[in-house]
Amino acid sequence: MNDCHSHLAPVSLDKAYRLINHGPTVLVSARHDGVENVMAAAWACGLDFAPPKVTVVIDKIARTRELLERSGTFVLQVPTVAQREMTWQLGTRSLHNEPEKLQHAGATLFQMDGVNAPLVAGCAAWLACELIPEPHNQQQYDLFIGQVTAAWADTRVFRDGRWHFENAPPEMRSLHHFAGGHFYAIGEAFARPDSDI
Amino acid sequence: MNDCHSHLAPVSLDKAYRLINHGPTVLVSARHDGVENVMAAAWACGLDFAPPKVTVVIDKIARTRELLERSGTFVLQVPTVAQREMTWQLGTRSLHNEPEKLQHAGATLFQMDGVNAPLVAGCAAWLACELIPEPHNQQQYDLFIGQVTAAWADTRVFRDGRWHFENAPPEMRSLHHFAGGHFYAIGEAFARPDSDI
Repeated sequence: MNDCHSHLAPVSLDKAYRLINHGPTVLVSARHDGVENVMAAAWACGLDFAPPKVTVVIDKIARTRELLERSGTFVLQVPTVAQREMTWQLGTRSLHNEPEKLQHAGATLFQMDGVNAPLVAGCAAWLACELIPEPHNQQQYDLFIGQVTAAWADTRVFRDGRWHFENAPPEMRSLHHFAGGHFYAIGEAFARPDSDI
Repeated sequence: MNDCHSHLAPVSLDKAYRLINHGPTVLVSARHDGVENVMAAAWACGLDFAPPKVTVVIDKIARTRELLERSGTFVLQVPTVAQREMTWQLGTRSLHNEPEKLQHAGATLFQMDGVNAPLVAGCAAWLACELIPEPHNQQQYDLFIGQVTAAWADTRVFRDGRWHFENAPPEMRSLHHFAGGHFYAIGEAFARPDSDI
């Protein structure tokens, strides 16, 4: 484990939904037969708490789609403000016509034991997912369902089961794409007085 | 049209996805046979651009679910920082045991021509949706798919086809729930130099 993920710690599965509950843009990574790829996706969402499940929409032109369909595994990761140019490049370049897409986008990958997909270094959180095959959703709507099997976060921004963006460097905040390369960072925190989380 | 929505303007369907692309928590409203209800949902997401479609996860205990299943219509709206207590109350109170839920939560409803569901006043944006019935998704995953048939936004925060949170009052920012009544507001804006939106 190098400096890129020296702050990485496991997140319990009952809290994993919190990593994407606030609606960040994600990176989707997958590997099959020695080919690895990563794409950006704004349309990723929680689907269930226990076991935790997620949805993600992946267009038929995406090479990452083919890899995750064949391997049955993918990782959703939450990129940061510091990674916004990389996120944009991963969402607009294609491995179909650019074999060195990942290097050109500036993405560094790493592995975690038991996960048959690569993880992107420098993100705020990672959710390893097993595909739940639903051919009708995949063909009709480009909609994929995954069950989260393991999760990790950078403890500088997520610890004790919750985000702490308000006490972390601004460049570690999550990204929320709205169109054409325009992103918002997540902003000010508001807690209810009687909240116990 | 009263002061509650004097800033409301239509959003073209090709831009409607942008109203939720950044992952806000939404309010889901529906009406059937004279009964109206509104609930909060963190798990709402874009699904397609043209025609625009959305997904939203709605638990079987929600009264709003029954109303939208029967009427085939619902509205997703984007509540603001000023509405965070109302949003929490709409997400935790139930019409099943509290007939005056909407009044107690502080929600004021209004109507738009051609939409067979109520809209919540004071929100930043509204997407009127027709349910695309997918019984397997609804039963197995509590996952509902809607096609957006009309959309509106408050021109103080969304105009010319894009959000302008950075130039609007902070209390008009979208809410992003992460757990137990803890919300983040959407934050700082970042644009790519060559973006043309």
